[in-house]
Amino acid sequence: MNPVEIITKKRNGNPLSKEEIRWFVNGYVAGRLPDYQMSALLMSIYFQGMEPREMSELTLSMIESGRTLNWQHVPGVKVDKHSTGGVGDKISLILAPLVASAGVPVPMMSGRGLGHTGGTLDKLEAIPGFRIHLTDSEMMQEMQRLGYIMIGQSEDMVPADRMMYALRDVTATVPSIPLICASILSKKKAEGAEALVLDVKCGKGAFLDSHEKTERLAQNLVALGQEMGIETVAILTAMDEPLGNTVGNWLETREAIEALQGKGPSDVMEVVMVLGTQMLVLGKKAKSPEEAQSLLTRMLESGEGLKRFRDMVAFQGGDVNLVDNPDSYPNTPFMKEWLSPEAGYISGIDAFALGMAAIELGAGRMAKEDSLDYGAGFRLHHKTGDFVEKGEPLLTILAGKEDAIQSVQSRLKSVYQFKKEPVKQTPLILKIMDSRGSRAYSA
Amino acid sequence: MNPVEIITKKRNGNPLSKEEIRWFVNGYVAGRLPDYQMSALLMSIYFQGMEPREMSELTLSMIESGRTLNWQHVPGVKVDKHSTGGVGDKISLILAPLVASAGVPVPMMSGRGLGHTGGTLDKLEAIPGFRIHLTDSEMMQEMQRLGYIMIGQSEDMVPADRMMYALRDVTATVPSIPLICASILSKKKAEGAEALVLDVKCGKGAFLDSHEKTERLAQNLVALGQEMGIETVAILTAMDEPLGNTVGNWLETREAIEALQGKGPSDVMEVVMVLGTQMLVLGKKAKSPEEAQSLLTRMLESGEGLKRFRDMVAFQGGDVNLVDNPDSYPNTPFMKEWLSPEAGYISGIDAFALGMAAIELGAGRMAKEDSLDYGAGFRLHHKTGDFVEKGEPLLTILAGKEDAIQSVQSRLKSVYQFKKEPVKQTPLILKIMDSRGSRAYSA
Repeated sequence: MNPVEIITKKRNGNPLSKEEIRWFVNGYVAGRLPDYQMSALLMSIYFQGMEPREMSELTLSMIESGRTLNWQHVPGVKVDKHSTGGVGDKISLILAPLVASAGVPVPMMSGRGLGHTGGTLDKLEAIPGFRIHLTDSEMMQEMQRLGYIMIGQSEDMVPADRMMYALRDVTATVPSIPLICASILSKKKAEGAEALVLDVKCGKGAFLDSHEKTERLAQNLVALGQEMGIETVAILTAMDEPLGNTVGNWLETREAIEALQGKGPSDVMEVVMVLGTQMLVLGKKAKSPEEAQSLLTRMLESGEGLKRFRDMVAFQGGDVNLVDNPDSYPNTPFMKEWLSPEAGYISGIDAFALGMAAIELGAGRMAKEDSLDYGAGFRLHHKTGDFVEKGEPLLTILAGKEDAIQSVQSRLKSVYQFKKEPVKQTPLILKIMDSRGSRAYSA
Repeated sequence: MNPVEIITKKRNGNPLSKEEIRWFVNGYVAGRLPDYQMSALLMSIYFQGMEPREMSELTLSMIESGRTLNWQHVPGVKVDKHSTGGVGDKISLILAPLVASAGVPVPMMSGRGLGHTGGTLDKLEAIPGFRIHLTDSEMMQEMQRLGYIMIGQSEDMVPADRMMYALRDVTATVPSIPLICASILSKKKAEGAEALVLDVKCGKGAFLDSHEKTERLAQNLVALGQEMGIETVAILTAMDEPLGNTVGNWLETREAIEALQGKGPSDVMEVVMVLGTQMLVLGKKAKSPEEAQSLLTRMLESGEGLKRFRDMVAFQGGDVNLVDNPDSYPNTPFMKEWLSPEAGYISGIDAFALGMAAIELGAGRMAKEDSLDYGAGFRLHHKTGDFVEKGEPLLTILAGKEDAIQSVQSRLKSVYQFKKEPVKQTPLILKIMDSRGSRAYSA
């Protein structure tokens, strides 16, 4: 085969064959094909797209580049959840133990935060001692004992995705729908998920910039899941304002613990319940959404979800005293209230701008090498729709360095918008899409 | 500046600023920007195109990567000619001495053949001893004495073009109109041309595959020339059948010598006259095409063009005995007549297929490293429109190796097409385009 002919074919908008895709990906991973040819192919895919069959073959080739996990000795349909990334999004930390406690096994492999969005692994690592890498026998033990794991991707799993993602990051080919789909599904298939619930974020704080593109992404993810034999449900959720009342790694883990104690903010719990319901139905632990919801509520109220979280933290080496007593977490040295510049109804809290401000505090990273300040972040005292007086605290800034607090304040100016009249609440759950089509969500 | 932001901007279809283009090209030539980022930018340019202003800035940045020639001490408007590449195209060898003999200085820097098309340098090097690289003082001497030079691009001229072309060749970004335009104009501006006549080939044997794309290329070349202060005329010529009666390096040089002796094939002479006329008008040696044509005819009939060619060969170290007596060229060892498989009117001679067959004979190269057999090639006995009997020779195959003659015959089968009825001649000169617009050509 000839790499230039394959690039030309895709550049001209023609679908690639299974053999061509496989040969290119294998050659790249083996170092036979140079970065500049992969870069040209990726940009051609950005412009010309891929059919579901091509996406599926790309995904399979990527999976074949490394090892996969196998849960055949764990009974039940293995279901995972993936989010396209948001600000204040601590859903996985609440959802995984809750769904596992309801009897659906969850082999969750998560990522780190990059850019304005946070990452589940970073939130878990805010707990001292927590290990995101487990041996095979530890993983099997934990899955059998607790019904779920929360791990990072090991070096030997889907190395093609790691290599291709690193290249996409420096060649402006990240926001390509087929490449996003193959990246997500390759990891989910490799970790052994048999069904998948996707939280596809829409709005200012989301990864893709338009509603139309986001919906196209969701459709493609569902179609690719179908091609790969992974029953996939995509839920479009609003990501205009941050989710919940905290942004920052430890702050969010703490908020997740409180949610598992039954004290979660209503927006967070709405997303948890909608996603969890779908996971239970996919995992065949409930026949209807109503049955699933009442089962999840029971698990929450009985404290079974919290217990499952505590057991997981203990199993993976984390300090469980922090789960039992979150107040014992070391104090973040510097703290400042950010006061409302005017009186009125909050009409918007820009999630993207707040995410960027969190990076400045040390709570997120712009480059993979950046280290994190786990205690840094924001505690939000008001959300969209609230009425505030001038001078009333809007949020608390927490940081390890005093100058970070100073410099972040200029960014915060653009975060809040106000109106004189009461603001109508907009829905959080926008749409549910699965292999049968898409439908509006009604609570 | 940030390379990913620049790639993103072009990927999204936004024009790049002068500073961005310059920073990217300079960074690439200096080795600060890697191949994979240039490759992503080139593919984005392939899809999104460039405005004339951007093309001009790309071209200037490329020129700045190396040294340029300066002819301020040579009087007159320096005019050059460029062809987008054809099969049997020996026009430059006839045109340059003829136009120079009419008083227009021609600083001609040519290329080698690659793929199915031939190159002027290869044809000149078929003359033993001929040197395509001259010192600065030799070039100046030759320009002052003979009014023209025929040289190759030296390593230190437009290195950005060499680097970018090599990368385009392996990343499927060759057929991009702005990149083709910048590549051509950067070399022409660097060699010191002040006006330019372009022979833009259309048809089966041409570089671009559609008439519409070819016309767009011609328009863009004229627009870029305008932006760069180089008055440019583009002439669209048909390249369906080969030009003239020979394909192969020495065979074509010999045909060019014969043309300068007044014995050129009519199609070759038609192209020479149309291009030469435009060059004389651009060079202000004739006020009208009619005046230009009669001046060129005088130069041809008086033998002044031939003398100018002979002097150039002598100056550049070539064996002038071969110009005086082409029969003394060493015999090509193997020769075979290819006979017509049927009786009828020739309705087509596929220039692309014949060009590919010439490579198989050793007359052309697929890779830059391939060496050439200067004597190999084809001598055509009939052109489109001729009536031939079954078994009558269509062409003579000449080669240095007997097995090449054997293997090339299967390729020749697809070259000729026949019809029972007489075939209407189609025009060779299709259109003339300049900064005032485009017009049909009428002889």
